[in-house]
Amino acid sequence: MSEQAIYVYAKWQVKEGKLDEVLQILKEASKKSSEEEGNLFYKIHQSKANQNILILFEGYENESALEFHKNSEHYQNLVVKQIVPLLENREVIVMDQIF
Amino acid sequence: MSEQAIYVYAKWQVKEGKLDEVLQILKEASKKSSEEEGNLFYKIHQSKANQNILILFEGYENESALEFHKNSEHYQNLVVKQIVPLLENREVIVMDQIF
Repeated sequence: MSEQAIYVYAKWQVKEGKLDEVLQILKEASKKSSEEEGNLFYKIHQSKANQNILILFEGYENESALEFHKNSEHYQNLVVKQIVPLLENREVIVMDQIF
Repeated sequence: MSEQAIYVYAKWQVKEGKLDEVLQILKEASKKSSEEEGNLFYKIHQSKANQNILILFEGYENESALEFHKNSEHYQNLVVKQIVPLLENREVIVMDQIF
């Protein structure tokens, strides 16, 4: 696994009427993710044109830190099990920063 | 105009064979955008799964700083006139950071 910092961008389209519920759970997921050792940042944004579009932007020290995040109890329980069923659409891109 | 920081996320799908050309121009656009007074950051990422997908993530002190950027000579010339014709697809979302 590469030792270079790795970044994740996710675009979530929340189902109509589920935004408050998603934001509530996401607050906890964001707090726990930010406390992970290899986490650089975990930022949540909301589209100004459509409040149901959330953009997550996350940074990890390296690929193993990202793997740790994806296998964590809070990611599996809060994001995969609780939030994903409340989403209309979900796009995730793993990225390198090039400049 | 709101005085709150404002963020822009853009996802570019570069046309096959045009990546080097786009990156060359983008380097200059990134440098000049970062030098704008109201710019917080201007980060360029590349998808690990598809090198032709670039994700731009930009921060501005407030809405007028973003307006300044969009009306700048380097944005109009480098991005709108030179880069956009080399893109297959372009998605831009203006956002607030919520946590």
